[in-house]
Amino acid sequence: MLRGGKTGPHRDGWGVGFYENKACRIFHDPNPSAKSPIAQLIREYPIKSKIVISHIRQATHGRVCLENTHPFRRELWGREWTFAHNGKLHGIKKRKLIHYRPVGTTDSEHAFCWIMDQMRLRHPNKTPRPQNIHKDLKELVHDVGEHGVCNVLISDSLSLYAHCSTKLAWITRRAPFGTASLVDDELEVDFCKETTPKDVVTVLATRPLTSDEHWNIMKKGEFMVLKDGLTRHP
Amino acid sequence: MLRGGKTGPHRDGWGVGFYENKACRIFHDPNPSAKSPIAQLIREYPIKSKIVISHIRQATHGRVCLENTHPFRRELWGREWTFAHNGKLHGIKKRKLIHYRPVGTTDSEHAFCWIMDQMRLRHPNKTPRPQNIHKDLKELVHDVGEHGVCNVLISDSLSLYAHCSTKLAWITRRAPFGTASLVDDELEVDFCKETTPKDVVTVLATRPLTSDEHWNIMKKGEFMVLKDGLTRHP
Repeated sequence: MLRGGKTGPHRDGWGVGFYENKACRIFHDPNPSAKSPIAQLIREYPIKSKIVISHIRQATHGRVCLENTHPFRRELWGREWTFAHNGKLHGIKKRKLIHYRPVGTTDSEHAFCWIMDQMRLRHPNKTPRPQNIHKDLKELVHDVGEHGVCNVLISDSLSLYAHCSTKLAWITRRAPFGTASLVDDELEVDFCKETTPKDVVTVLATRPLTSDEHWNIMKKGEFMVLKDGLTRHP
Repeated sequence: MLRGGKTGPHRDGWGVGFYENKACRIFHDPNPSAKSPIAQLIREYPIKSKIVISHIRQATHGRVCLENTHPFRRELWGREWTFAHNGKLHGIKKRKLIHYRPVGTTDSEHAFCWIMDQMRLRHPNKTPRPQNIHKDLKELVHDVGEHGVCNVLISDSLSLYAHCSTKLAWITRRAPFGTASLVDDELEVDFCKETTPKDVVTVLATRPLTSDEHWNIMKKGEFMVLKDGLTRHP
């Protein structure tokens, strides 16, 4: 979390959501994460979760305040959906919204509301099958990407969806877990201490977070689905 | 917060939401508040807010987990709405839902989704005037109350709405602020330390929280609107 205002330029707030079943526990802070008491709480009180979605903001559209802090959330089909975006989406606010309206003023939340609207229009009554969710989301995020840079992470509590517009990297770790050196900090993380031998953990980020591991770089326009720690290309 | 599992029977999780402009920062914890590290954070790091909505749960419907923890939230007309309920609502789940679906399994969240649905049906396009929101909410909450006990707090970020079915008490404090003794704990609170002379603070709770102040007891079926710390009967 040092990237938020200490070793990185993203000093305009941050947020992290931890899924527990169908609901997501989100901590938001419009203050830089490097000196946040909420970040301190999370460091000292680690919450176990199968899907974690996090974002450190460098404000482009919209002032620095709680309602403009990612990840955003909305309920659809009785599931809590979350959305985090890196990039700028020019003219996205011209897209008309129906069911979902932004609470804040960011281009990102408008894009999320539009995607949720379209998902609801395509499946107004019944929750669609996972394959259809993957297919629709892929199309919709690609469509939104026409407005500019659209690196996004989305979750519906069951899977994590990622779309790479300009930069996203990922790595899957599994037993035997080793150690790795963080890029931003003179710190080595021992994954053995944080995991059990059965765990499979995939991490996605806008750039590799460790210097001594092999990260996979996503291609422009690539869409990815993650479930139970494993990647599944739709 | 000692009521949550130490001096009170409500040991099945708790939640508190602090509005900042149109968004609400909610802390949820399915663990008893008396021994929660999140409660500790809030005690040590007080957040200034014009509307705070809080709930300590004694589970009646639905297991103890994050998605069943009050206050619940939904977006309507670009505002974040929150809802906390005390009581049981028998048969409420038979009411059909359209736009909003529960993430958890409580009767309370189902009632909230139904109320949000009806508000949206009555005003599908434009945000109604405050007087109309008050009038509609009063009718809808009263209607839900036919299913049983329905002491509720609702907020749309601008006002706080309260409906008393069996028990709700309130008090308005303003300068000069004095001290008061908490019912649950051998503790005296000095409100001078927490306020400025211009502040007006109204507190609503299912029962008086202090022993040496005069609390107003709401009548059965009474509905109340609070804005900027003052009560306004609709």
